Amino acid sequence: MRDVFHEQLESVFVDLAGICGRVELAVGDASRALLTGDAELAERVISGDVEIDRAREEVEESAFQLLSLQAPVARDLRTVVAALRMVSELERMGDLSVHVAKIARLRVPGIAVPEEVRPTIEQMATVAEDMVRRVAEIIIRRDVAAAIALGRADEEMDQLRRRSFTELLAEDWGHGVEAAVDIALLGRYYERIADHAVSVANRVVFVVTGDNPTSVTA
Amino acid sequence: MRDVFHEQLESVFVDLAGICGRVELAVGDASRALLTGDAELAERVISGDVEIDRAREEVEESAFQLLSLQAPVARDLRTVVAALRMVSELERMGDLSVHVAKIARLRVPGIAVPEEVRPTIEQMATVAEDMVRRVAEIIIRRDVAAAIALGRADEEMDQLRRRSFTELLAEDWGHGVEAAVDIALLGRYYERIADHAVSVANRVVFVVTGDNPTSVTA
Repeated sequence: MRDVFHEQLESVFVDLAGICGRVELAVGDASRALLTGDAELAERVISGDVEIDRAREEVEESAFQLLSLQAPVARDLRTVVAALRMVSELERMGDLSVHVAKIARLRVPGIAVPEEVRPTIEQMATVAEDMVRRVAEIIIRRDVAAAIALGRADEEMDQLRRRSFTELLAEDWGHGVEAAVDIALLGRYYERIADHAVSVANRVVFVVTGDNPTSVTA
Repeated sequence: MRDVFHEQLESVFVDLAGICGRVELAVGDASRALLTGDAELAERVISGDVEIDRAREEVEESAFQLLSLQAPVARDLRTVVAALRMVSELERMGDLSVHVAKIARLRVPGIAVPEEVRPTIEQMATVAEDMVRRVAEIIIRRDVAAAIALGRADEEMDQLRRRSFTELLAEDWGHGVEAAVDIALLGRYYERIADHAVSVANRVVFVVTGDNPTSVTA
């Protein structure tokens, strides 16, 4: 009985890593659409989100089946509930990619990101995509050390967000209010993607060690 | 056995409504701090968030106890999992109130909201606080009709957010980039509070009827 349970649980984690892979693509495509003003690519991210939602529903269904049919207790129970939370967070990261893509689409045929903040936003996009890629690995390998290391990438994201504020609030900002608002919201979306990535990684730490890192709810 | 289960489940929902009451206070206090530039009140919201976090942990513990000891199936199982999700969303609404309070604190002794957008932001704050108040009632009374009606308040929030963009992107906006960025982020925070309120209400609909409103994951 327990063996069937752990096999099914493993399959849930494989599905979670698969969703994480889709989210990585969505973050990457949304960022590319943003930085190149590619309306078609932005559209693909926006319309493709429904597949992440569907994959989420499937994982939820599997988790409910596990809870119903196997009635796990103690750590097994907490692992299944952790999986349910992870899939919610992954889906939310997909939604945030859609928000990035929508800002991209809104400014076509222009580009939402003025040249002088481009390095900062590009770096945010790179850090976000990289964090999501690492989370997929962390889920598959249950890699606690990698999960803990992810916090450092999150610190880089916080620094980048502060830098973007410094840039858009500088005396010589010449791109007006609209571009500044776009940059501020983009910064918020990337920051949230990073926060969720850390939270998902922390849940893996919990699943493996039974310890709940305090930052899990940050 | 089932009776004990339903009594304990009811007590979880009473606790959820209690947390919702705390969130309502946090939203109201953060908004008041924002609109009056009250640093002390902002500080109280920020430091008080730990109590919402603690209350969340207690509800989670109770829900895990229910799952472990009673091994509910079918709708009972889904209701307990819904409660776990509701408490996460309520805690997140508390975090968003902290974000509002931090913008308030950042601008003291000034006020983050310029006079000409004040009516819009004031209205957002009122709608948000009102929505959270209604959610507490919806949880206690399992009021499906009220939960469905909450969608209309959310539409008002969306309209207010659009209005705030019109105002800060107007030709005659005279408050510079910093104030515009504050307003854009505040709009985002209030919008997310409203989204979570709708989502919590939709989970009540699910708990009562077994139907999952499609907007629950929006």
